[in-house]
Amino acid sequence: MKYAVIGVGGIGGYYGGLLAHHGFDVHFLLKSDFVHVAENGLIVESKNGDFTLPNVNAYLRVKDMPKCDVVIIALKTTQNFQLESILPHVVKKNGIVIILQNGLGVEEDVAEILGNDVIIIGGLCFICSTKIGPGHIKHFDYGSVRFGEYAQGYKPAGVTKNLKYVYDLFKEIGVSVQLSENIGEARWRKLVWNMPFNGLSVVLDATTDKIIKDKYSRKLVEEIMMEVISGANKCGYHIEEEFAYEMIKNTESMIPYKPSMKHDYDKGQKMEIEKIYLKPISDAEKAGFEMKTSKYLALQLEFLDGREG
Amino acid sequence: MKYAVIGVGGIGGYYGGLLAHHGFDVHFLLKSDFVHVAENGLIVESKNGDFTLPNVNAYLRVKDMPKCDVVIIALKTTQNFQLESILPHVVKKNGIVIILQNGLGVEEDVAEILGNDVIIIGGLCFICSTKIGPGHIKHFDYGSVRFGEYAQGYKPAGVTKNLKYVYDLFKEIGVSVQLSENIGEARWRKLVWNMPFNGLSVVLDATTDKIIKDKYSRKLVEEIMMEVISGANKCGYHIEEEFAYEMIKNTESMIPYKPSMKHDYDKGQKMEIEKIYLKPISDAEKAGFEMKTSKYLALQLEFLDGREG
Repeated sequence: MKYAVIGVGGIGGYYGGLLAHHGFDVHFLLKSDFVHVAENGLIVESKNGDFTLPNVNAYLRVKDMPKCDVVIIALKTTQNFQLESILPHVVKKNGIVIILQNGLGVEEDVAEILGNDVIIIGGLCFICSTKIGPGHIKHFDYGSVRFGEYAQGYKPAGVTKNLKYVYDLFKEIGVSVQLSENIGEARWRKLVWNMPFNGLSVVLDATTDKIIKDKYSRKLVEEIMMEVISGANKCGYHIEEEFAYEMIKNTESMIPYKPSMKHDYDKGQKMEIEKIYLKPISDAEKAGFEMKTSKYLALQLEFLDGREG
Repeated sequence: MKYAVIGVGGIGGYYGGLLAHHGFDVHFLLKSDFVHVAENGLIVESKNGDFTLPNVNAYLRVKDMPKCDVVIIALKTTQNFQLESILPHVVKKNGIVIILQNGLGVEEDVAEILGNDVIIIGGLCFICSTKIGPGHIKHFDYGSVRFGEYAQGYKPAGVTKNLKYVYDLFKEIGVSVQLSENIGEARWRKLVWNMPFNGLSVVLDATTDKIIKDKYSRKLVEEIMMEVISGANKCGYHIEEEFAYEMIKNTESMIPYKPSMKHDYDKGQKMEIEKIYLKPISDAEKAGFEMKTSKYLALQLEFLDGREG
């Protein structure tokens, strides 16, 4: 079995690194860090134990990669425009594509590129991990993944044998795994947290603890969470309102946390506004619900995303 | 005739300074700059001509001031809680109180303190002027004032003889003056500009030119402007939608501009959220209209207003 990892940042470097560390035959597609990683390999500092991979199969061009049985997409969704020219070269027929990305609609995009010849598994990572230098990953906290198989139109796909395979694979490398029978709903559930905290952390320049402690920003969080829940329910999912309060409670007991979008913004990188905001807003709109507060936050983020320098 | 100026910042220092410069008998109530101004006077750098006032009547305690015929309130509205202990000591019976402040409801507050024995004139300053050091005012641009007399409950008061007196007074010191027969409506009109630009300049850390050029923030501006116009109209005023487009056009041809709230924020001072946001939002709410986007912006500002440090 061959494994590919597309994108070697905080997510791809950590989970892909773990696979290689456990002896799997992993092939990494890199860009800016290619030369460094080809020469020096990967370093993973993790709260679960540091490890180094002095020799990794590093590639700059997808055409040099072998066809793989399992392909993990760990790019930022802002780079998904590249998938069309990457995936057909690296995914084996009947292979499994695992998408470790945030936001909505990413499975659909991959299905459009690869058609019905592959299995698509969505994965939601609850992790604080970031690339701190070329080929140097730092895993700070958490690390579980919730997987769900994609079926056309986001119909609930249940727990299939492919999903069980992915479950076992990640278990084997020491990752805490949950399964979802409905990846569409699982993505919306993650948005209940991501839509308020990712955007507000950027616009208000604040970590989660500050946002949740202040009564005004907490009100913003509550409002956006309720809006996301309404949006999800309008789109045919079922998320109960209590889920918002659960998320808020969890956030209160979290260590001060800088969401991924804030990391991107602080590094001067593009933010994942399209998949985390615009797509859910547009899906809800098609279902007849205007996510007014989220729209407003998205416009602020788009302004900041276009900033100079 | 005696004149008092309460608050000697960019507004009070400039207009009050002009009055003194033109030979009027002006008495300044100061706080942090008292010692400096009592010893060194005022410096006004203005695009219309610099001048210095080496000897000004400076006071730290209102009880030392003479009763004045005309009292100009030029405090930030965040300091309006002080007016109750200041005004009764300095305003002559049947005197004129001129309120050079932004936002809504300030005339009402003064009327509550002083009752019917005084004339209350609201003044909206279209000016870029700021205090750059103790007793040191810098007037960058613009400078006109729109005055309107207050009548109970913001009934249109028309152009009264007191209003004409204020008009003549400011004309005499070289200020461009407009009059309004309806100060309530004039205040809402100013909010059409202030509510989007003051708040967004703080939250997005941007000057007016950046906000108006970017298509996303421009959309935010338009949305908030339309909401303010709806709010005003629900409160019984009449502002036409074209007014928003006029304001946007004006802003496009303005020099890059940092609104007063952004100045306050950058100096670490409290922002005028109460009068510029909460009061109009609450007035509109009472009239049955929810200013949802403005509320959202206000919550962001309240979060930032409470920041540490």
